[in-house]
Amino acid sequence: MKISIIGVGLIGGSIALKLKQKKTADFIYGIDNNTENLDEALTLNIINEKADLRTGIQNSDLVIIAIPVDSARKILPEVLDLISDQTVMDVGSTKSGIVNAVKNHPKRSRFVAFHPMWGTENHGPKSAVAESFSGKAGVICNREESANDALELVENVVKSLDMHLIYMNADDHDIHTAYISHISHITSYALANTVLEKEKEEDTIFQLASSGFSSTVRLAKSHPEMWVPIFKQNKENVLDVLNEHISQLRKFKSALEKDNFEYLEELITNANKIRGILDK
Amino acid sequence: MKISIIGVGLIGGSIALKLKQKKTADFIYGIDNNTENLDEALTLNIINEKADLRTGIQNSDLVIIAIPVDSARKILPEVLDLISDQTVMDVGSTKSGIVNAVKNHPKRSRFVAFHPMWGTENHGPKSAVAESFSGKAGVICNREESANDALELVENVVKSLDMHLIYMNADDHDIHTAYISHISHITSYALANTVLEKEKEEDTIFQLASSGFSSTVRLAKSHPEMWVPIFKQNKENVLDVLNEHISQLRKFKSALEKDNFEYLEELITNANKIRGILDK
Repeated sequence: MKISIIGVGLIGGSIALKLKQKKTADFIYGIDNNTENLDEALTLNIINEKADLRTGIQNSDLVIIAIPVDSARKILPEVLDLISDQTVMDVGSTKSGIVNAVKNHPKRSRFVAFHPMWGTENHGPKSAVAESFSGKAGVICNREESANDALELVENVVKSLDMHLIYMNADDHDIHTAYISHISHITSYALANTVLEKEKEEDTIFQLASSGFSSTVRLAKSHPEMWVPIFKQNKENVLDVLNEHISQLRKFKSALEKDNFEYLEELITNANKIRGILDK
Repeated sequence: MKISIIGVGLIGGSIALKLKQKKTADFIYGIDNNTENLDEALTLNIINEKADLRTGIQNSDLVIIAIPVDSARKILPEVLDLISDQTVMDVGSTKSGIVNAVKNHPKRSRFVAFHPMWGTENHGPKSAVAESFSGKAGVICNREESANDALELVENVVKSLDMHLIYMNADDHDIHTAYISHISHITSYALANTVLEKEKEEDTIFQLASSGFSSTVRLAKSHPEMWVPIFKQNKENVLDVLNEHISQLRKFKSALEKDNFEYLEELITNANKIRGILDK
């Protein structure tokens, strides 16, 4: 199958590598405003050819939109205007916005709203890896709004990525990802800013940083180009969980201030439950 | 050299494995109130022999205390009472408390206060790995209070662990570790509690959990037996940085509430600086 990928960065690039490896894709057009990324993707054999939007779409069976969620929401109606019976999918971390943007588009049924639960703090085609998605969840939203053949094509792509498929309503998706993914990023950003504020000697951070610190602060390296639009589109859900998070931190503060170490132990023992859930 | 390790858990066990591999230790006595751990450490060839405190100390050149910081502070004076000219070191994550506990002990100079900047969310001898400490910082505190030969012996142990040595005042150590290590644990515990509070469907957490979430919440699996005493001993510094962290999170909240996405981008761009510091 021939595929156009709009946005040949970390996610688009990783999908391209995996689908070529699995021979799900036999030709990939790369479409990207960032010509440097595009050239790099070509050099790295991530794509077969650079293309403009119209040429790519006309020659492809599947169009994958892999750009930040605000740009994705903007470009999707244009892409749907250009297709005949091709399938279009996105990979964005928020789903209500994009689904609503094309609710009444005559070609709505050619679009499948998708979100692979994988990413790293890196960006660009250089960071792309084929073995990225294996074992993670691939979420398809509002499947009843997609045509059967389009849905089936995307389901096969998700299987080629070695992901396990989950179906979800777009609004539910945005609530759950606020809890499980978006808040982790805010926590990590705020932790980085805390340490940068308190620890004036950068060299001490570098010298003392343990694997624990590096792991907790890893997501703080993620770029604002991707994350500001996500927080913007999922504002209400993110604020809701952020308020809860601040109140959870206040419990630790209160336990410490009052020398209530039994309560502190209780809070930690409760947090330990995450082990049983994650390490099933 | 013959070594006694008091506490054959994750840290004590990992030190034992590495020092045996490097032939720095030719015989290791294991001392532990937890007989299950002790038997396991023997089966796993982490220690050569189980011993009681007196026997272990009498037959060793070096005694390593690797138990939670409250117990370590309690046992250190007893250990110093029992030694003649052996060297004693600890591995605790807080240093002011233990250093003050033996300030006036006649054998103070035989003790070297040490903290290896490594750990995982796991515990027990089964979790011990020889290649744990490589490349991380090994901090020796208040070196001027230790005898030269004791200091030299511990410095050689730290080199055998492939760690890079840092010297620090105990009070400074506790400030820096509050910033760089202890707050990460509170963040992670509070994040786990947030998600457990908001996401009532445990199966959804398990299904959707991405590598980003797992990484940020990893430290939340760490046991209260180790961490309550650390927070207790380092209360003032931890509270100071926790207050800063809550105020950093409030900035994200305020940016979102006011739709101030420029400010949000600014906060994230600032957090991104951690990349340059950690990936030197």
